[in-house]
Amino acid sequence: MSSEIIHEAREKRPLIHHLTNQVVMNFTANGLLSFGGAPIMAKAVEEAEEMASISDGVLINIGTILNQDIPAMIQAGKAANKKGIPVVVDPVGVGATSFRKEAIRQILEEINPTVIKGNAGELAHLVDIPWEIKGVDSTGEGNSEEIARKVAQEFKTIAVLTGKTDVISDGTEVRLNRKGSAMLSNVTGAGCLLGSIVTACLTTSHSSVESAFAAVEFYGRAAEYTEGLDEVKGTGTFIASFLDALSFNPNDLKGGQE
Amino acid sequence: MSSEIIHEAREKRPLIHHLTNQVVMNFTANGLLSFGGAPIMAKAVEEAEEMASISDGVLINIGTILNQDIPAMIQAGKAANKKGIPVVVDPVGVGATSFRKEAIRQILEEINPTVIKGNAGELAHLVDIPWEIKGVDSTGEGNSEEIARKVAQEFKTIAVLTGKTDVISDGTEVRLNRKGSAMLSNVTGAGCLLGSIVTACLTTSHSSVESAFAAVEFYGRAAEYTEGLDEVKGTGTFIASFLDALSFNPNDLKGGQE
Amino acid sequence: MSSEIIHEAREKRPLIHHLTNQVVMNFTANGLLSFGGAPIMAKAVEEAEEMASISDGVLINIGTILNQDIPAMIQAGKAANKKGIPVVVDPVGVGATSFRKEAIRQILEEINPTVIKGNAGELAHLVDIPWEIKGVDSTGEGNSEEIARKVAQEFKTIAVLTGKTDVISDGTEVRLNRKGSAMLSNVTGAGCLLGSIVTACLTTSHSSVESAFAAVEFYGRAAEYTEGLDEVKGTGTFIASFLDALSFNPNDLKGGQE
Repeated sequence: MSSEIIHEAREKRPLIHHLTNQVVMNFTANGLLSFGGAPIMAKAVEEAEEMASISDGVLINIGTILNQDIPAMIQAGKAANKKGIPVVVDPVGVGATSFRKEAIRQILEEINPTVIKGNAGELAHLVDIPWEIKGVDSTGEGNSEEIARKVAQEFKTIAVLTGKTDVISDGTEVRLNRKGSAMLSNVTGAGCLLGSIVTACLTTSHSSVESAFAAVEFYGRAAEYTEGLDEVKGTGTFIASFLDALSFNPNDLKGGQE
Repeated sequence: MSSEIIHEAREKRPLIHHLTNQVVMNFTANGLLSFGGAPIMAKAVEEAEEMASISDGVLINIGTILNQDIPAMIQAGKAANKKGIPVVVDPVGVGATSFRKEAIRQILEEINPTVIKGNAGELAHLVDIPWEIKGVDSTGEGNSEEIARKVAQEFKTIAVLTGKTDVISDGTEVRLNRKGSAMLSNVTGAGCLLGSIVTACLTTSHSSVESAFAAVEFYGRAAEYTEGLDEVKGTGTFIASFLDALSFNPNDLKGGQE
Repeated sequence: MSSEIIHEAREKRPLIHHLTNQVVMNFTANGLLSFGGAPIMAKAVEEAEEMASISDGVLINIGTILNQDIPAMIQAGKAANKKGIPVVVDPVGVGATSFRKEAIRQILEEINPTVIKGNAGELAHLVDIPWEIKGVDSTGEGNSEEIARKVAQEFKTIAVLTGKTDVISDGTEVRLNRKGSAMLSNVTGAGCLLGSIVTACLTTSHSSVESAFAAVEFYGRAAEYTEGLDEVKGTGTFIASFLDALSFNPNDLKGGQE
């Protein structure tokens, strides 16, 4: 079913409105374009609602959030909720500072995310499960499935927990994805771009769990494939070939643990 | 004559002050450097005039504009007008929201652009010609030549309308460029970087129409050449090789419909 | 000793908090990750101190500075001083406008940088030595060693002056690095990323001069190596392969004037 979802998303070429961080805007836009979606990256609060209302989905990522960015995120998210289009929230580094905790609290109080996507440390923080954090990346070990399930339940959403094994849960069901590449953890914005592609897949006619899983699995497959290419010798060449791979047919992404 | 213009621009290594969007700053700077110009990307209103006054050209692009960005754009543009150096305005996504319409209205009221560059949808919007818009990209069909001519007349400028066929007009004369690559539409900021290279070419001793045409044609030629390379397999590898190609001699960019 | 420093920095995987410019955030993050460090790129003043306090080093770069960015830079720098972790200041384009002069004056009044890194024009400006500047890049000739020594003395810091020959000085001793590639001057943010890698190396147990020198020499070696690769044909392919090379063992970076 995963392949179908990818094809349907591409057929639709969904317009995704991003309120995302400055580090990854270019990479996210190019990645979504390569995959087959269309990015908008407007930031002004004055147009947040209007942009969301012409979009097929909204992505909110707090990676380099400033206090003044919050109203635009909330307005775009609310407009998406009202229109009934998917909203994905990526609470980057939420456990690192009290400013981020408060920002994400404000956002999640006002909008109903279709998906909350983050690493184990970020999602653990949202539901007060202890987790060791190093900076904005998560390095500890723990019960990822429990965390994902609890986030889904508490926020009435789908949790997408990324890591060596990705965990997707609606609070009851749990889906696991083991496709991927360790190289992704050395690419800044790899998680952020995944959020964008998840949003694109959520615009299809399939269930949110299936759509999120399809996005995550496709992304992991593209990474595995890219890692195996002869011309990939490090982060730089990986990035170029990974952007290529995001446009490929799922069936052509052979490699890794197939 | 086009080749001469490219060579003269490179000889001069013009300093272009950019007030541009956050998505494309890195790509634009690298692209202009590769082409042979020198980018400035300052954003503060406090230095907008001073930066413009040490520059050879100014580019204004509203892709991720915030309300507070407008004064710096106007000051830089006015300083450029006063100094007599080229100013290029790129009204990204102007038709998408009323905020953008108002922003571009304010900017065009205060400054006299040497060139207005945009896709058909954006330029059509400026002169109230109906056009179907999907997000910030233009997907409809229409009379591009009429739109370009009308923009040039109404704003007393050169219009550079990008699309499958690029149209350059001063309101009377129309020049067409059919060199290019469909891959450019999957590269975020491809149009924005073209604006930067147009600005660089406008600093030469040739007429604005000739200079803008030379930039557009060279850019299309570089894209065609890149698309034809064996190592290009998608957006990521295209971007890398396209940045390379921007530094090449026009005569070495063989490929496509030559 | 240089190789030891690189290895120790990688072993430690230092978390570097960046308050840097919008043009280079993505490239810097990917470059530091490839090298073996971990980037944070938060910008909000509300979390500047907290982010610095969980970091191993702080980098301050004024490339696209706005007036409202200054407090976060100062707070992060002061927190780093208090914690005793390295702070690197990169006064990008400081000679170009009075706004930049004033911004850097405020910053250097409040914090004690471990290293000030810039090109000859930027550093000359800090100590009132005349220098010809074109935009934000430095193109003149002059006594780089004198400038570096004077910056180190006046600001009680280590000066890292980048150019065809890089000069590192603590005010007395001077170390020179001649490894490098002219291609770096066509890569936007090449100097900015070097600042990040210098910060990472300063977190090791070696002296600041030795650590800064090791970073600069490694960087130059990686650039020389990359320039010599068959697949590198311009800026775009250089960037990809250079990011790769930053992860390599110093001994594997053969090439150039070895």
